Amino acid sequence: MTIGSKMLYVKFNEMQAVVTQILLKEGLCEHDAKLIAAVMAESSLDGIQSHGINRLPLFVEYLQKGIINSKAELKLVADRGIAKQFDGNYGLGIKNAILCTDEAINIARNNSIGFVTLRNTNHWHRAGTYGWRAIEKGFILICWTNTIPNLPPFGSPKNLIGNNPLCVAIPHSKTPIVLDMAMSQFSYGKIASAARNAEELPVIGGYDELGELTTNAKMIHEKGKHLPIGFWKGSNLAFVLDMLAAILSEGRTTRQIEEMQGYDTGMSQVFIAINPNSFSEQNFLENLMSETILTFAETNELEGTDIRYPGEETLKRRKQNLVSGIPVEEEIWLMIKALL
Amino acid sequence: MTIGSKMLYVKFNEMQAVVTQILLKEGLCEHDAKLIAAVMAESSLDGIQSHGINRLPLFVEYLQKGIINSKAELKLVADRGIAKQFDGNYGLGIKNAILCTDEAINIARNNSIGFVTLRNTNHWHRAGTYGWRAIEKGFILICWTNTIPNLPPFGSPKNLIGNNPLCVAIPHSKTPIVLDMAMSQFSYGKIASAARNAEELPVIGGYDELGELTTNAKMIHEKGKHLPIGFWKGSNLAFVLDMLAAILSEGRTTRQIEEMQGYDTGMSQVFIAINPNSFSEQNFLENLMSETILTFAETNELEGTDIRYPGEETLKRRKQNLVSGIPVEEEIWLMIKALL
Repeated sequence: MTIGSKMLYVKFNEMQAVVTQILLKEGLCEHDAKLIAAVMAESSLDGIQSHGINRLPLFVEYLQKGIINSKAELKLVADRGIAKQFDGNYGLGIKNAILCTDEAINIARNNSIGFVTLRNTNHWHRAGTYGWRAIEKGFILICWTNTIPNLPPFGSPKNLIGNNPLCVAIPHSKTPIVLDMAMSQFSYGKIASAARNAEELPVIGGYDELGELTTNAKMIHEKGKHLPIGFWKGSNLAFVLDMLAAILSEGRTTRQIEEMQGYDTGMSQVFIAINPNSFSEQNFLENLMSETILTFAETNELEGTDIRYPGEETLKRRKQNLVSGIPVEEEIWLMIKALL
Repeated sequence: MTIGSKMLYVKFNEMQAVVTQILLKEGLCEHDAKLIAAVMAESSLDGIQSHGINRLPLFVEYLQKGIINSKAELKLVADRGIAKQFDGNYGLGIKNAILCTDEAINIARNNSIGFVTLRNTNHWHRAGTYGWRAIEKGFILICWTNTIPNLPPFGSPKNLIGNNPLCVAIPHSKTPIVLDMAMSQFSYGKIASAARNAEELPVIGGYDELGELTTNAKMIHEKGKHLPIGFWKGSNLAFVLDMLAAILSEGRTTRQIEEMQGYDTGMSQVFIAINPNSFSEQNFLENLMSETILTFAETNELEGTDIRYPGEETLKRRKQNLVSGIPVEEEIWLMIKALL
C-alpha cells in the first residue's frame, strides 16, 4: 500500500459485482464476466491483491488493445488419453487455466492422473486459484506457468528467465495445503509496494545498481533485478519449469514470450491433477498431513516461533476478510470504479 | 576435500572394479554389485563425490547392520495402468530407484506419461543418477525423494523437514538438461567439506549458534542448521514434496522417517517419466532448448559472465575426469581399499 493511502474495506460481494459490471462493459459474456470477477475478487479476499483486483486496470487495457481476445475459445490440439494439449488462442487466461484444471481433474477422476498442457494463453493471475479449485474437488494439483523474462539467471546482468509461478495443492478436510510460489524471492507486487513505502525487505530480494545483493526494495525496483530463490538453485528450477512448459504444450519459452513486443502474453502452462484416493486411503492421507503439521504447531507452542505450512495464512486471511471486508487502497478502488 | 589431503586420480574402470569387489564381499549378487558400483563410480566421475564412492563406507555399514537388505526384492503393490506403486522392502536404494525409473519410462513409452511411486526404500544416493539414465533413453524424468529431518522449516529452531532432493531431466542431442537439487542451499557434503577446510561459503548457507544467517561453514556444520533455498519458499517446497511422496507411495513422511532410530531409511519416492515426442516434434524441442541456452552463452560472451544451465558443469566434469581420472581424497580411497 502507498504511504498515506487510505484503506477501504470492500465486501466480497460488492467487489465481485463491480468487477462483473466492468467486464460486461468490456464485452465479456455474462458467464465469463462473472467467472473472472469471482476469481479476481477471491484473490483479493485471500490477500493476494497484486493478482486480484489490483491487476484489473491492466487486464482491461489488454482487452482494449486486443492482446487478450475475450471471444477466443480454448481448442483441443492433441488428445492422448491421460494427456491433452490445448491452445488458448490468446483468450482469457483465467478462463483457459480453469478449463484446463477442470479437464485435468476429469481425466484424473478415471485414470488416477490427468495431464493437461496449454499454449498461447494469457496471464492466469494467481497460481493458487487453480490449486484451491482442485482441492475443493478433492484433487491434488501441480501446475505452473512460464512468464516474460523478469528474473536474471544466477550470475547474469540481464533478465533472461521468468519467475514461473508454481502451485502445488493437496486436499485435506481441515488443513489443506496450497503452495503458490514464484521462483523469485519476492513477487513484483511486493517489491513495488515496499519500494513505494521505502520499506526494507525482511531478507535479500535482489540487486542494487552495483550488482550487490540488497534488502533495499526501492533499489531493486528501479534496477528491476530480482533475486531467484536460493541463487543458482531457483534460477535453475525456473529454467527447467520454462523448458517443460514450452516442450509439453508445444508453446513458447520465456525467451519467445519476450518477442511479443513487450506484452505479457503467449504463455505456456502445465496442469497435473492427481486423484489422491487412487494412491492412499483418505484416513492415511489425512493423518499423515495432520501429524507433520502438528510438529510445527508443537514447536511454535514450545519455542514461541511462527512456523507455518503453505496455505495456512491464506485461509486465515480469507476468513478475516469475509467478515471485515477486503482491504483495498482507496486510490486503486477509485481507479477501478472509474472503469465502470 | 580435507586440508592437506593428497588427491589421487583414479580411473573410472578401476574405481568401478574396486567397488564391485567390495560389494561382492558384502554379499551382493554379481548383477547388483556391478550395478551399484557403476552408479557410485558414475556419481564420482560427474564430481558428485558425496553421493558417489564417498558414501560407500556408510553404505557398507548399513548392509552389515541389516538396515539395507541386499536380498530384498522390489514388490508391485498397486497397478493402475499409468500409475504404479512399489514397496522397496528396505532393499538396495539405488537398485529400487533404477527399477522404478525404468518402469516409469516403460509406461511412458506407450502412454506418454508414466507415474511410479516407491515406499520403504533406502537412500538413492544421487538424484541425478535417475535423470541421466532417463535422458539416455530419450525421456523426460521428474523424480524426488524425501529424507530424514535435516532442515529447519523457515522460522524453526529445529530440523523438522527434509532437504528432499528433486531431479528434473530433459533429453537433448547436444545440451541435455539435468537439474539435481536439494531444498537446502548447500548439500551436507559441501558444508562438511567447507567446514573442514575453514572455507567461507559463497552465499549464506545456514545459521550460527545465535540463530543468525551466516556464510561460516564451520558454524553451520556444528549447529546442523542449514538454510532452505529462498527461506520460506524452499521450506514450503520441501514440505509439499514430502507430503506428495508419502501420500502417493502410501509411505513414510520425513516426520516418520525420524522414527527409524536415527537411521536414514524408509524413504518415499516419486518417478514421473514423460515421452517428449508425445508432446512436441523432436526439432521443436531441440531448437527451443538450444535457443534459450544460446541466450546464456551470448550473454556470457558479451558480459564476461558465467551463466550456466543445469547439467552443463556435470558433462564437462565427466569428460575431464574420464581422461584425467576421478579426483579422490587419498584418505577416502585408503578407507575404501581397506573394505576390500
